[in-house]
Order: sequence, then structure tokens, then C-alpha cells
Amino acid sequence: MSEIKEFERLEDILDKNLTGSNYETVRQLLYGRAVEQIDLKTIPFNRNLQVEAYRIPCPEEQLRKPRNVRIGLFQNQIPVPATSKIQYMKNALYKLAEEAIETSQKSGVNIFCFQEAWNMPFAFCTREKYPWSEYAESAQYGPTTKFLQELAKNYNMVIISPILERDETHSDTIWNTAVIIDNHGDYLGKHRKNHIPRVGDFNESTYYFEGNTGHPVFETEFGKIAVNICYGRHHPLNWLAFGLNGAEIVFNPSATTGGLSEPLWGIEARNAAIANGYFTCAINRVGTETFEHEFTSGNGKPAHKDFGHFYGSSYVAAPDGSRTPGLSRTKNGLLVTEVDLNMCRQVKDHWGFQMTQRLDLYADLLARAVKSDFQPQIIKKSNC
Amino acid sequence: MSEIKEFERLEDILDKNLTGSNYETVRQLLYGRAVEQIDLKTIPFNRNLQVEAYRIPCPEEQLRKPRNVRIGLFQNQIPVPATSKIQYMKNALYKLAEEAIETSQKSGVNIFCFQEAWNMPFAFCTREKYPWSEYAESAQYGPTTKFLQELAKNYNMVIISPILERDETHSDTIWNTAVIIDNHGDYLGKHRKNHIPRVGDFNESTYYFEGNTGHPVFETEFGKIAVNICYGRHHPLNWLAFGLNGAEIVFNPSATTGGLSEPLWGIEARNAAIANGYFTCAINRVGTETFEHEFTSGNGKPAHKDFGHFYGSSYVAAPDGSRTPGLSRTKNGLLVTEVDLNMCRQVKDHWGFQMTQRLDLYADLLARAVKSDFQPQIIKKSNC
Repeated sequence: MSEIKEFERLEDILDKNLTGSNYETVRQLLYGRAVEQIDLKTIPFNRNLQVEAYRIPCPEEQLRKPRNVRIGLFQNQIPVPATSKIQYMKNALYKLAEEAIETSQKSGVNIFCFQEAWNMPFAFCTREKYPWSEYAESAQYGPTTKFLQELAKNYNMVIISPILERDETHSDTIWNTAVIIDNHGDYLGKHRKNHIPRVGDFNESTYYFEGNTGHPVFETEFGKIAVNICYGRHHPLNWLAFGLNGAEIVFNPSATTGGLSEPLWGIEARNAAIANGYFTCAINRVGTETFEHEFTSGNGKPAHKDFGHFYGSSYVAAPDGSRTPGLSRTKNGLLVTEVDLNMCRQVKDHWGFQMTQRLDLYADLLARAVKSDFQPQIIKKSNC
Repeated sequence: MSEIKEFERLEDILDKNLTGSNYETVRQLLYGRAVEQIDLKTIPFNRNLQVEAYRIPCPEEQLRKPRNVRIGLFQNQIPVPATSKIQYMKNALYKLAEEAIETSQKSGVNIFCFQEAWNMPFAFCTREKYPWSEYAESAQYGPTTKFLQELAKNYNMVIISPILERDETHSDTIWNTAVIIDNHGDYLGKHRKNHIPRVGDFNESTYYFEGNTGHPVFETEFGKIAVNICYGRHHPLNWLAFGLNGAEIVFNPSATTGGLSEPLWGIEARNAAIANGYFTCAINRVGTETFEHEFTSGNGKPAHKDFGHFYGSSYVAAPDGSRTPGLSRTKNGLLVTEVDLNMCRQVKDHWGFQMTQRLDLYADLLARAVKSDFQPQIIKKSNC
């Protein structure tokens, strides 16, 4: 029902209602320096999927060759009802994933990333432990990783797979984890979500704890990549940490709904790209997921059974503040974006944000701020 | 010349070309929760000034009374040519300031803030030391502070005055400084710009050094305020520091031009409001300033005499991500915004960004990152 009322996307409204210089003025202010469309017309796709492809232009250098990388971001609805049996759901999602990865390979994608907890419904709104905890798998040895290792190897593609992780070697604990598989099909490592929400239907702290894997940057054949999972995008320090560790692309696989976060969606990942001199990739789930039992949202409203609309709108932002249009708010989609990783250093050289960062000043402040006797720097009249 | 080609503002294009639900959809996505207009029609203004007034609505609490504060942001062109004699320029600016502050008082403003280096042309593009260094004044005892102390007292208004500071007690050094005068006309203190640009025409590092005043928050009768001067808005750590020290409103007096920063303008101060749970006030200079001698911009283009167009567009952003429309890109303007400071804590309670911040994690990382033997957390295949 609620699907019907959802509008398709902001960009379509602007495209249809603005013309000529008005269009270009608004586009430039809202999206920055123009990106180029890549023509994929001749490629035989599965047309169930909205596929959009862009190139973010970057000047050539004298000494370094261009390091062009194609990024594929996949956003999707769950293909069968949230109430489906676990294995049935997983199989349906695997089928969808295989199609998306095959389409990605035809589009020349080198690094592919799914949305958060991609191989399950986003069931954390229910606060029910079962059956949802049964979705958790070993990051390194679980069936989802095994399944993707085959595809990564066959298609020569790095795959980032955000899943619910079961850590059997540490008391069977559950984590919100992104698994990184390299383009030879080898497990490269994992990252656990650092910041866990407790707001609205995002009851994730009921299921898993704040991540203990730091801020790893994974050195792949297609660049140095990192993963800032969902709610971590609200934390500038989290973004900063991946930058300090040398990331060139930071993926932000998410699952977030309309009422709560949509006006922030275009702001946060893009601000992070600007501030840290790397590319950011914001990916959001699509559609409405309805559960068997009702639950409340801690907002005074009656109990209900759905999570609200996940609004898609996945996009890529560049270090210079430019960005691609977003994908649809309602449809499964693949966003292909070609970037030259050399742009990261170019923008750092140009703007100078890293040179002027004064990290020592903030190292000192944070060391003081975490202490129980921290004295904020407040100036009152009596001090003068 | 270049003034003629400048368009008025993004909001006007959207207002004129979008209707009905399209308008509301775009407005909500781009500007967040709706702000209310305050009707100032009955107040006799100086109509040379664009005056816009908004209220950012905020729920009432049971135990705390609303803490409504009206903020006045003033953006302006220099009223006489940049090449004018110094005292003539200052007098013309003082006249303009007096009108703006009088209009502010009629509009119920409690805290008034000027743009960066408001009492002079933004002459740092020239790299000429004279006559521009002659604009520098003592923060506490200079003529501009004395002039504003009278107004602050008469109009019961806190005034933030960003000027070029001369520190006679420390070897005659020059600083980029914001002076805070309280509503009784008393000098409350000052803050020196922490991050200094070296990009394009922003040759400010030629004139003054990175600030040594930390991140002070000034406790006034109208709330706890801080000042993040211009280029500091590109630094999430700078914004964070004012938040850690307890700021409820952070002003960002700026001087920035179209080509370089405009697509970032709506992103950075707004992201800071969201991330840190306070109001941010972005203020930018207006117009084109033309100097006597030509200068180059380090961009391969021919020498020229003007700084490009300062695009105004001042706005206020709230902790929940909503924001006011921007002022004009071309005209002098006063933006009056009524906010309830209680919203800061409300949004922190709701979103939980501060609770989930894990500052200890980042204190540890920054302590390591500033060391010369810092080892970034990089995962390569050989490590597995």
C-alpha cells in the first residue's frame, strides 16, 4: 500500500520541471561539478534492474597513470515476504545477487557492494530474537561468503558483503559485519559496525554490540577501500578514522527509512567525501518490509507491522563535493560509477584540508574530553 | 559587470518552477522539516536591506521552559570601492552596521553576527601587506569594538564581530579574530580562526597564523555560543570541538566565492549541526571586490583585479537537519531566525549521536595518528 504513494526521486522532479539555465544552475548547486553518463545501451541486461552509469571526470597527471575503477552499488527490496522461511529468503536473495553481479560484470564493475544486512529482512525493529538470529553466519566460512567467493573469482570482482555475523569462537556472539572478498575469491577480512543506533525502529543494540575491529582499510587491486556501516555515517570521527588509515573509497551500506533520515541522506556521506578527500558510496535498501507480529516504535504511535519505506537513493560522492544523481527511491537498482582514484590526492593538494587539519590540537582535546574531570573551555563574564 | 550575470538564489528558481506536492516534496528533501515564517510587515525597516525572518519550531518540555532566542545574521557588500581610504571605508561600514543592528533590534534579535572580516575589504587575495594590514585593530580596545559596545548596550544585543586583529602585546602580530561583546556592551572575549586556507585567492596564510585560542564557548544570557571562522567549516574536528565544549549555537562567519565552494555551502555547516546537536549559522559576504593592482590566483589564469563573486546565501541549520532558506546571492540582507535552544538536547536524546560517539576510541586513534611512526590499519592479502 505505502509503496504506491512513494514518489520516484528528487532528480526526476527537477528534470521535469526545470529547463535551460535554471536546470543547470540548480544541478550545479545541488550536485557540484557535472558527472558524465556512461552509455551501456549495447549491453544486454536483465531489465528488471534500473542500471545507471556515470563517470566522474578527473584530470590526468604527468607521473601517475590514471587509476580508473568502476564501482557497483546494488540496492534492493527483499524479493519474497519478510515472513518467508530463512532458506527460502536466502535463496531468493542469492538469485537476485547473482543477477546483479552478472550485470555488474557486463558493466565493467571492479568493486561491488551490497546494502546493509543484505541477505535478510531488516528485522531488528521486531526485537524478536528468533527466527532472526538464525540468519547470522560466520564471516569467513558461512554460506553467503562461500557463495560470493565463487562469483568474485569468476567475475574478477571485489565484493563487499554486509551480513549479520555469528562469531562461534567468541561465545556465539552476533555482529553487524561487512565481509571483504577480493577479486580472486579470497576472504580478505571483515569490519564490524562501530556505532549502533537506538532510535525509532532501529533497535539494533538489542542484537549486537559496537564493533571491535577498529577502522580497517583493505588494500585491493582496485584501491584502498573501507566500510562505514549505516549509522556510522552520522559520526564524523568514524569517517575521519578511515581517512587517517588511507582509504580511497569508503562504502556506506545502509538501511534507513523516509521519515527519519531522508533530508540528511544527501548531506552526510557527501560531507565525509569533502572533509576526508576520498570517494564515498551511500547505499540504501528499498521497499517496505512487513513482519508477522506487531511492534512499537517508541514514538507514541500504535503498534504496527512494517518498518516504513526504505527509500533507496544510492549515490556516489567525490572528494571535490560533486556527486552522481541518486538511484530510484522505489526500485531495485545498480549504480555503476567510474572514478579515478588519483582525484583523492589531487583534491587534498588543492583544498589543503589535510595539511591544515592540526590533528595534534584535537588529539590533545579528545584525550582531555574522555576524562571524568574534563573542564570544557567556557568563557563567562566572571572569567574576564 | 559580473554582478549582472549572477542569479538571485536557488530557492527562487524552485519556488517559481515547482508547484503543489512537487514543491513540498523537493522542499522537504532539500531543507528538512518546515520552518515557519515570522511576519515582520508592520515593522518600519530600512528597505535597502532584504530582511527575512523564520521560526524553527520545537516541542515544549515539562520541566524546562522554552529558551527562545532570535539570531540575526548580516551579509553585506562593501558599501564603497575596495580601493577607498581606510577610514572612509570603515565609516561607511559602520553606517551600514548601525542600520543593520537597528533593524535587528526592531526584529527582536538577541544575538547578531557579522560576516568574516566585516570591517574591511577581503583583501588577502592581493598578498600586499599595505595598506591592508592597517585595518588590523586591537580586539578588546580597537575602534570597531568600541563602536559596537555602544550599540550592544543600547540595543541589549550580543554582537559577534569578526575583524582583523592586531595583537600589540605579542610582537604586533595579526590574527583573524571574532570578538564577542555581550548585551551589556562588555567585551566577553575573542576567538582566533583555527584553520587558515591556502587555496585560490585565499592567501590568508600570508597575513596571519593558525589561531591559538582553542575552541572557546561563550556563555551569554542568550545561550552558549561559539564561532567557527570561515575555512574552519571544512574541518569536522573543529566543529566537534565546539560541541564538546558545550556550544548551542555555532556561528560560521565566512567570505567565500562562487566557483570554489558553492556546492559545499549547504552541506558543511548543516552536517555540523546534525553531527553535533547544535544550531549552525552560515554567513557569507556579498558582491565582487575589485582592487587597484592585479594579482594571480595560482590557477594558470591571467592576472586580474577582482576576487570573484561572494555569493551570500546565509542560512541557519538546526540540530535535526532542517534549515532556513538562504538569503540572496547578490544583496545585502538580514536573516532573523528564532530558535529554541532546548532543541539541542532534544535531538541528542532522540538520535543518540553523542551517546554512541565512542570518543575514547578516537582519542586513542588520534594520539597514535599524530606520531611519526603511526601505522595505519591496513589489511592486505599477505596479512591474512
